[in-house]
Amino acid sequence: MSTMMKALVYNGPGKCGLEDRPIPKIQEASDAIVKVVYTTICGTDTHILKGDVPTCTPGRILGHEGVGVVEEPGAGVSRFKKGDRVLINCISSCATCNYCRRGMPSHCVSAGWILGNTIDGTQAEYVRIPYADSGLHHVPKGVDEKALVMLSDIFPTGLECGVQNGKVQPGSTVAIVGAGPVGLAALMTARLYSPSLIIMIDRDPNRLKVAKWFGAHHTVNSAEASPLETVMSLTDNVGCDTVMEAVGIPETLELAQDLVAPGGTIANIGVHGKSCELKIEKLWVHNISLTTRLVDTVTTPMLLKLFAAGSINPGQLITHEFPFTEMMKAYTTFKAAAEHDALKMLITM
Amino acid sequence: MSTMMKALVYNGPGKCGLEDRPIPKIQEASDAIVKVVYTTICGTDTHILKGDVPTCTPGRILGHEGVGVVEEPGAGVSRFKKGDRVLINCISSCATCNYCRRGMPSHCVSAGWILGNTIDGTQAEYVRIPYADSGLHHVPKGVDEKALVMLSDIFPTGLECGVQNGKVQPGSTVAIVGAGPVGLAALMTARLYSPSLIIMIDRDPNRLKVAKWFGAHHTVNSAEASPLETVMSLTDNVGCDTVMEAVGIPETLELAQDLVAPGGTIANIGVHGKSCELKIEKLWVHNISLTTRLVDTVTTPMLLKLFAAGSINPGQLITHEFPFTEMMKAYTTFKAAAEHDALKMLITM
Amino acid sequence: MSTMMKALVYNGPGKCGLEDRPIPKIQEASDAIVKVVYTTICGTDTHILKGDVPTCTPGRILGHEGVGVVEEPGAGVSRFKKGDRVLINCISSCATCNYCRRGMPSHCVSAGWILGNTIDGTQAEYVRIPYADSGLHHVPKGVDEKALVMLSDIFPTGLECGVQNGKVQPGSTVAIVGAGPVGLAALMTARLYSPSLIIMIDRDPNRLKVAKWFGAHHTVNSAEASPLETVMSLTDNVGCDTVMEAVGIPETLELAQDLVAPGGTIANIGVHGKSCELKIEKLWVHNISLTTRLVDTVTTPMLLKLFAAGSINPGQLITHEFPFTEMMKAYTTFKAAAEHDALKMLITM
Amino acid sequence: MSTMMKALVYNGPGKCGLEDRPIPKIQEASDAIVKVVYTTICGTDTHILKGDVPTCTPGRILGHEGVGVVEEPGAGVSRFKKGDRVLINCISSCATCNYCRRGMPSHCVSAGWILGNTIDGTQAEYVRIPYADSGLHHVPKGVDEKALVMLSDIFPTGLECGVQNGKVQPGSTVAIVGAGPVGLAALMTARLYSPSLIIMIDRDPNRLKVAKWFGAHHTVNSAEASPLETVMSLTDNVGCDTVMEAVGIPETLELAQDLVAPGGTIANIGVHGKSCELKIEKLWVHNISLTTRLVDTVTTPMLLKLFAAGSINPGQLITHEFPFTEMMKAYTTFKAAAEHDALKMLITM
Repeated sequence: MSTMMKALVYNGPGKCGLEDRPIPKIQEASDAIVKVVYTTICGTDTHILKGDVPTCTPGRILGHEGVGVVEEPGAGVSRFKKGDRVLINCISSCATCNYCRRGMPSHCVSAGWILGNTIDGTQAEYVRIPYADSGLHHVPKGVDEKALVMLSDIFPTGLECGVQNGKVQPGSTVAIVGAGPVGLAALMTARLYSPSLIIMIDRDPNRLKVAKWFGAHHTVNSAEASPLETVMSLTDNVGCDTVMEAVGIPETLELAQDLVAPGGTIANIGVHGKSCELKIEKLWVHNISLTTRLVDTVTTPMLLKLFAAGSINPGQLITHEFPFTEMMKAYTTFKAAAEHDALKMLITM
Repeated sequence: MSTMMKALVYNGPGKCGLEDRPIPKIQEASDAIVKVVYTTICGTDTHILKGDVPTCTPGRILGHEGVGVVEEPGAGVSRFKKGDRVLINCISSCATCNYCRRGMPSHCVSAGWILGNTIDGTQAEYVRIPYADSGLHHVPKGVDEKALVMLSDIFPTGLECGVQNGKVQPGSTVAIVGAGPVGLAALMTARLYSPSLIIMIDRDPNRLKVAKWFGAHHTVNSAEASPLETVMSLTDNVGCDTVMEAVGIPETLELAQDLVAPGGTIANIGVHGKSCELKIEKLWVHNISLTTRLVDTVTTPMLLKLFAAGSINPGQLITHEFPFTEMMKAYTTFKAAAEHDALKMLITM
Repeated sequence: MSTMMKALVYNGPGKCGLEDRPIPKIQEASDAIVKVVYTTICGTDTHILKGDVPTCTPGRILGHEGVGVVEEPGAGVSRFKKGDRVLINCISSCATCNYCRRGMPSHCVSAGWILGNTIDGTQAEYVRIPYADSGLHHVPKGVDEKALVMLSDIFPTGLECGVQNGKVQPGSTVAIVGAGPVGLAALMTARLYSPSLIIMIDRDPNRLKVAKWFGAHHTVNSAEASPLETVMSLTDNVGCDTVMEAVGIPETLELAQDLVAPGGTIANIGVHGKSCELKIEKLWVHNISLTTRLVDTVTTPMLLKLFAAGSINPGQLITHEFPFTEMMKAYTTFKAAAEHDALKMLITM
Repeated sequence: MSTMMKALVYNGPGKCGLEDRPIPKIQEASDAIVKVVYTTICGTDTHILKGDVPTCTPGRILGHEGVGVVEEPGAGVSRFKKGDRVLINCISSCATCNYCRRGMPSHCVSAGWILGNTIDGTQAEYVRIPYADSGLHHVPKGVDEKALVMLSDIFPTGLECGVQNGKVQPGSTVAIVGAGPVGLAALMTARLYSPSLIIMIDRDPNRLKVAKWFGAHHTVNSAEASPLETVMSLTDNVGCDTVMEAVGIPETLELAQDLVAPGGTIANIGVHGKSCELKIEKLWVHNISLTTRLVDTVTTPMLLKLFAAGSINPGQLITHEFPFTEMMKAYTTFKAAAEHDALKMLITM
C-alpha cells in the first residue's frame, strides 16, 4: 500500500500546487486519519494564498472542509471506527477546556481553527483529524455527501455568526450585506426562523439573482441604488431588526450601522483587516447590539438533523465541480467568482 | 390656594434660574399632577445647560427624577389616587405602542424621555406626569424616600444599560470605566449577581475610594497606572467578561475594546457626542457583543423590591443635600463634583 | 339610529340564543365601542354553555374573538379613531399592572380574559372593548379579515402556550396530542421554527388528514395504534423534544409524560378540569420541563407581521361560514365537529 | 509499593464495610488514577445501602465526591499530570456525545453518574476517573480543600437543579421545601442572585436554625405551622416566584404546587420513588413551569471561581469530620442526622 498522497500545498504568498506528500499518521490517541472523499475551497484559503494569515506557514496543506471515510481511528477514539463515513468540522475542539465547555471551541486552548492553518488540512487524499470524537460527525443515512461538505464551515458560520447572533425571529426584518457564499448560507439558515422580510445587498447581479432564488424578499444592487434608502422605504423608516455584515470591509460595517432598527442587532460575519468607525454618537440611544464570532460549529448537530429532514438545501451553493487533479483550476475559478457566476467549488478526490 | 409655584427653568445655554411658574394642570385623562417632595440633578441636566440637547428648548423646567405625592390624578388614572406617595420614572410610557410592548419604553412613539426635556420636569414644586399609571410607582412602606430618588433614573440605568446588557453572572469578571454616579450605580447593581471580580477605573481618587467602599475588588487610577495592564494582570491575561463604559468619550470606549475577554460583552452606558474607532480587525475573532441602550425603567419594580428588602443602598450615592431655594448652589456643587467630592445632590422641596 | 342590537346570550347551562340587547356604551375613557364584522366560536364558549365556567353568569353575551370597525373610541383612547378596522384580542390588559409589565396580561389585576366571560363579548353586533389601546390591533393593509379572526385567540394560544413554551427550535422533534383547532394552530406556528419532525396524535381521521395537509410529518390515530410506540420508533427510542398537550384530560397529559425526551418540554395547552398523575419517579432524572399558560396575546404583533407577509395561513382553519342570524346552527355544527369535519366557524355579522 | 488499598464496599442491602481491594489501574487512555485526600457521604449512598438503586450491584466501592491528587494520568489525558491536586466531578462525561454537547452530561451515552454506582467510586484510597479531562478540575490556589469537596455534587446540584432551573432573580421570592444538605446548598447558591425573600421549610428545628444562619429570611417548621399560610402571608397571597422541592416525597411536591405564584417555577431537586398528583386543573391557568434535572456539573467552573473569590462558603455544611478508618461511624452519624445535628461528613483519607 502506498505511503504517499497528493495534496494542495501552500508555498508562500501567491504560490501553491499539488504535491506528493506522505500520508499522515496518528500522532495522539484522540486523532483519526480520514480518507477525504469531497472537499471544497473557502474564502479563507484565498486569504492564506495572499499571505494574509501569518499563522499559516509555507509547506502547509490547505483546507478545513470535507467529507470522508475513517481510515484509522486512534486508540482513544470511541465514537468512530474504520469505514465510518464522516463530516469534518472546520473547528477542532478538545471539548474540555473552559472555552469548549462554554460552547466556544473556536477559542479552544489547544485547538480551534487549526486544520489547513497550523496543521495540514483537507485538500489532500488523507487528513489527520485531532480530537476526532468532537471534530467528526457521522454522515446521516441517505444524504447527498456533496451537499454535506457545505456543513463543514459555511452553514454553521452563517447560522451561528449571522442568524443566531443576529437573533432572527419569526416576523423579523433582516438585511444581509454581502451575497457571497457565506451571506447566502446566512440567508438560507435565517429562513429557518421565518423572518417576514429579508433584504440582500451586493454589487453582483448574479449573486442577487441567486439570493432571490434562495428566498430573499428583496435585493439591492448597491452599485446602482442606495441600500439605506431601500431598507428604510421597506421598513417604515425604522431599519431592520437584524443586519448581517458578510463582506469584511469598513464601508459595509459602517453601512450596517445605518440600516439597523432601534432594538436591533448588527451581526458581523465578515473577516476584517481594518478598523472602522463606530457611530456611537447615534447608536448609544438606539438599544442595539453589535456581535462578532468565529464559527464554533456547535450547531452542526442541528444542521445535520435539518439536512436529513430536507429543511435546508446546502447543495444549491455548489456551482462548479472538479476532480482533485484539477484543483488549480478550481482555485482559479473560485478567485474569479464574478466572471464564472461561481459560489462554491465541489472537489472530488 | 396659590396657582403659582417655584421652578428651575432653562433659559438657553448657560442660563437657568428659579422662577415663578403656573402650577401645571391635567391635560389628558391619563395625566397626574404630582407635588414634588424630593428631586435631584442628573448629568443630563448639565448637558442641557451646555446647550447639547437640542430637543430641550429655552423656557423648559428641568428635571426627570423625583419622589412626590399625587395631587390630582386624571380621570383615566386607575392605579393612583390623591395623596399617594410615588416614585417618578424618568421615562414616560404609553404602554401600548410596539416599542413599549417590547420592553423599550425609551423609544415609546408618544413619550420616552420627555420630562425636563420636551415637557416640563420635576425640578419644581409640582409636575405633570403623562401616562401616570405607567410613569409612577407606589412608594413601598417604610423606605427612605430620599434614597428612593436614586431609583428614578440612575439605578435602572446602571442595571439595565450596564449590568443586564453586560450579562453579569455569578463568578463573572467586570470592569467599569468611569466611577461617576451612574458607574457607581452600575457597580452596586452588578453586585446583585455576585461577580467574582469588579475593577473600577477612573481618574478621581475620591470616586475610586467610594467604589472600594461600595464593593469594588480593585480600582485603577488611570491617571497613574495603565488600566489595560492592571486588568490583564488580574485576569490571567484574558480580560473581563463584562466591560461597562460609563464616561461617554471615544478614548474610554476604545479602551473598553481592549479590556474585554473573548466571549465577553462591552455594555455602553455613556452619553456620546462623537464617533469612535471600532477595532473590528481584532474583535471579529473574539466572540464579543457591544450593546447600547437608553434606560427603559423596566427594572424599577425589581429595584423597588430589592430596596424594600434592604438589598441595595441607593442613599449612599447622596453626598449633599439642599433645600430647593438653594437649587443654584446645588447645580454649582454638582458641576464641580471633583472639588466637592460630590456624587448626587438631594433636593428637598 | 337604533339603540338595540342582536346578541348571542348565555342563559344558564345548556341555554343560549339570539336576543335583542342595548348597544353598549363607553363606560371608561379607555374603552372603545367596536362594530363587529366577523366573529367565531371557541371551545371555551361550549365549556361555558355546559356550565363549566362559574365566572360567566346567565345574561352574558358570549364571544372573545372578532374583527370589526371602531364605532366610538373613548376619550382616553389614542391609538384608534372611528372607522379604524381592528382585530380584537381575547385578552384585555391594563398594560401597567405588574403582571402586564411582565408580559402576563392573562393575569392582569383589572382585566385578563373578561370578554364574553365577566363582561359582554363579541358574538353581537357591537361590543365594548376595555383598555382599547392595548386590546385592539390595526388590521394590516390587504389581509383577509375572515382569516384574521383566527388571530384573536387560537393562533396566539398555539404559539405562546405550545410553541414558545415548548421551546421548538430548528431541527426539533415535536409531538402534538390533540388535532383540534388549537392543536392545529400549534402545528402551524411550530413550523415557523422549522422542526424536523412533527407527529400529530388524535382519534379523528379527518383531523389527522388536515394535520398532514398543514405539514405534520406523521400522524397517529390513537384509536388504532400506540402513540408511544410510534413516537419511540420515529425518534430512535428517545421521545420528542417538545410534547404539546391540546386535549385537556388526564390520560393525554399522562401520555405526554411518556412521549417526552430527556432534556425536553411538555407544554400544556389543554383546559383541564381534573388533576392527573405526575410520573415524577421517572421524570426526576429526565431533565424535563412541564409548562402551563393562559394565552397572553403578547405575540399578536409578531403574528400580524407573519400574516401580512404570507408566512401563516390561518384561514385554512375555517371550515364553515354562517351569517350571524344562523348563530345557533353554527353552535350546533361546532359542537358536533367530528360529524361535520368542522374546525372553526366563521360568523359574518 | 503496595498494590492494595482500603475501600468502603457495598455488599447488598444493609451491608457495607471497609475492605482491602486492589488499587485501580488505567483501563482507557482517557482515565486517570487519583489518590483520594478527602471524600464525603451523599444521601444517594444511603439510598444504595437500602437497596433502592438497582444499577449499583454488590461488590461496588461507593462514593462519587472527593478531592485528591493525580497519581497517574492515562496516555490520552492532556489537562492533568501526576501530582496535580484535583476536584472530582460526581458526573463523568465523554464530552462529545449529543447529550454532553447540549450541556447534559448527566445523560452522557457512555458515562453520566457512574462513580460509586456502576463503577468503583471515591470512598477508597484510590479511584479510577474515566474521561479525566472532563471529570476533574484543578484545585484553585489557596482554597480550603475540605470545603471544596462540597463542589463535587451538592453545590452544583443546588445551583443547577434548584436555582438555575428555578430562575431565581434579584428581587425574587423563593421557597425551599427541605433543609437537608442539598436544600441548604440551594439556599446558599440562590443568594448569589439576590432574591428578596427566601423561606425555608422543614420539620427539623436545627436545620431551620442553620438555614437562618445561612441567610434564609424566614423559616417554617411544617410540624408546627402551615407552610401554605406562612408563604401566602409573606407574599401578599400570591405565592413564591420559585419553589424548590428538596425532599423527594409526593406530599412535598404537591405542597410545592400550592406555594408557587402565577408565572413562577417549581424546581424539583428531590429524588423521587413514587408518582404524585399534578394539580393541573388549577395550574393550567397559572403560567407556571415545573422542572426536573439530574445535576450536570456544568456550573462547577463558575462555582470554583466563586469559591476562590470567597463568595460562597461551602465548608459551613460540614458538621463532622472522621478519618477514613472510622468510615462506618461516619455512615452511622449521617444516617441519624437529626440526632447528631448532622449535615455533611468530611472524611480524611
